[in-house]
Amino acid sequence: MNEFANIKSNELKIFAVNMFKAIGCSDIDANLASDVLIQADLRGIDSHGVARLSGYVRLYEAQRINTKPNIKIIRDKKSVFTIDGDAGLGLVVAPRAMDIAIEKTHHFGSGFASVSNSNHFGIAAYHAMKALEHTYIGMAMTNASPLVAPTNSKERMLGTNPICYAIPAGDSLPFVIDMASSAAANGKLEIAERKNKAIPEGWLETKDGQASNDPRDLKAGGYLLPLGSDKDHGSHKGYGMGALVDILSGVLSGANFGPWVPPFVAFLPVLPELPGKGLGHFLGAMDVDGFIDKNDFGKRMDIWINRFKSATPIDPNYPVIIPGEPEFHAHKQRSQSGIPIVEKVLADLKEIAEKYHLDHPF
Amino acid sequence: MNEFANIKSNELKIFAVNMFKAIGCSDIDANLASDVLIQADLRGIDSHGVARLSGYVRLYEAQRINTKPNIKIIRDKKSVFTIDGDAGLGLVVAPRAMDIAIEKTHHFGSGFASVSNSNHFGIAAYHAMKALEHTYIGMAMTNASPLVAPTNSKERMLGTNPICYAIPAGDSLPFVIDMASSAAANGKLEIAERKNKAIPEGWLETKDGQASNDPRDLKAGGYLLPLGSDKDHGSHKGYGMGALVDILSGVLSGANFGPWVPPFVAFLPVLPELPGKGLGHFLGAMDVDGFIDKNDFGKRMDIWINRFKSATPIDPNYPVIIPGEPEFHAHKQRSQSGIPIVEKVLADLKEIAEKYHLDHPF
Repeated sequence: MNEFANIKSNELKIFAVNMFKAIGCSDIDANLASDVLIQADLRGIDSHGVARLSGYVRLYEAQRINTKPNIKIIRDKKSVFTIDGDAGLGLVVAPRAMDIAIEKTHHFGSGFASVSNSNHFGIAAYHAMKALEHTYIGMAMTNASPLVAPTNSKERMLGTNPICYAIPAGDSLPFVIDMASSAAANGKLEIAERKNKAIPEGWLETKDGQASNDPRDLKAGGYLLPLGSDKDHGSHKGYGMGALVDILSGVLSGANFGPWVPPFVAFLPVLPELPGKGLGHFLGAMDVDGFIDKNDFGKRMDIWINRFKSATPIDPNYPVIIPGEPEFHAHKQRSQSGIPIVEKVLADLKEIAEKYHLDHPF
Repeated sequence: MNEFANIKSNELKIFAVNMFKAIGCSDIDANLASDVLIQADLRGIDSHGVARLSGYVRLYEAQRINTKPNIKIIRDKKSVFTIDGDAGLGLVVAPRAMDIAIEKTHHFGSGFASVSNSNHFGIAAYHAMKALEHTYIGMAMTNASPLVAPTNSKERMLGTNPICYAIPAGDSLPFVIDMASSAAANGKLEIAERKNKAIPEGWLETKDGQASNDPRDLKAGGYLLPLGSDKDHGSHKGYGMGALVDILSGVLSGANFGPWVPPFVAFLPVLPELPGKGLGHFLGAMDVDGFIDKNDFGKRMDIWINRFKSATPIDPNYPVIIPGEPEFHAHKQRSQSGIPIVEKVLADLKEIAEKYHLDHPF
């Protein structure tokens, strides 16, 4: 038994499309949702690609996802608006909301969507990067089920609440930052746990508020730390960023927020007396050309990128990396070589394939 | 000789107004610039209040500040626009740009200003909080002269580039996060240096890329670390946030960016062959009521704030703090008791007062 198999991205996508159709998605929605997952795998974000496909299926089976949602604008004022995702897949709701934000940007120079009643939206970068083809700046954030404790607390109150900005350049690759507001993304702990390895102090504390090097302490009731890790190193800033994402995505949209955000895993119950509907996102775009000639901006971005790439390195073997660069390289490589799927995920995909009587490439 | 004197904020403000008038500001501009400084002192941000007054004066004397600027919109598209600050005080340019962003928000639901050809704008919170009286969400960021090295580098490439968001609440105090994107703000190092104290590892490295506990290593050519401090703890995220601020404030507006941002201290030279004009800001507002009924939003924010304040603390003596809370408390206290000015700053203020033949309260 190999540790992983390399699957061509188009084969993987066909499988995902069939899976989403099997749970009731339209052809268009199944294609869109699959594209979000496959782009994550191509970009090297294994934790957010087809590894999560069975999770979405189980949420559908738990009747927490509506595969035929009526996604609509429930309030707006010119450039700003709120979307009700009708409990649809975040993988479908978020791209629709982003399309409208881009449409608003055509008219008003910017467009911002708060989104309620949605579910896990995959990688934030997929949504923010939709702006790039228009030479717009794109942004995307989402709240998520609670894993992170605020500074001073040992209670899980915030998700790893990611923030993404995508900024077009000239001849260079775009600048794309897509970051969790916790010290380490949950996926890094999962990898360490799978390999039975210790993690650095500052990622996690035990349920009693003690420092920990053991990734298993998360499932034992511990919590992730905000970016900054401790007060001395600015954890109040990471907590503040996660809080900002929660407020813009959850409080502003009418979705749930803080400890009430529904869990991604279907076996965990949703809390009673929720303050809102589903989870929330915040997405937006701004027209570069509304600020500055867009060709000038491209040239200025190229200067910025080239100057930062040539900043004096501590070790000449490790130059400065421009945010998004590694993901573009992964995309290029994996488009040719295929996507490595680890054994545990393969088994999971085979299981749902058989359950829904689907052909599969595994 | 006392270590500090308590000066009433109104006396301090009258002095600052006279100082700004003495270097050529109009009554209105002098009042505005002084208000930005005094609000910083009232909020407890001593590093950004009247302690910087002599710095602005010296920039004027070095002919790097125009005290009679013609601040104008040089490009716009409905909700988004660019301001040329005409080398004015950032303390004057930024509030003007924010006023226009708020005006745009009245019309289009949001308004975003990129600002070029400006100077140091004081505390970001002053500008972002202007949105609160309209029940708008406000944001403000600025680039600044280089002190922070990107992950993998030992070269100063970014300022401590702050990000601020101000979000109105209902009965609770507003949520105001105003944070440097470095692990520690420069002011914290200055305090440690003044007290001859060691600093935690993870704030600073020496010019050769070595860890340091000595705040004096910054002036010896070292550099600050981004939020996250090292790769294991997410310094690439802090670097990415600082970079984002630099791009939105500097690249997008036509200002300088990265290592080219002009220094605040007048005795340091401006680099040759600059890619832009002055330094840059990015400011904006969004109308809450464009997303959700603003009264509902206030109630939801109160729920959010109360729930976070009651999150289980590690030590019951240190509950969770809502971003902005300590500054509101300082403001209340210092409005009554006066503003403590340390001896070094007092001497500095006396010196400029005598130079410009001004009455002073020191």
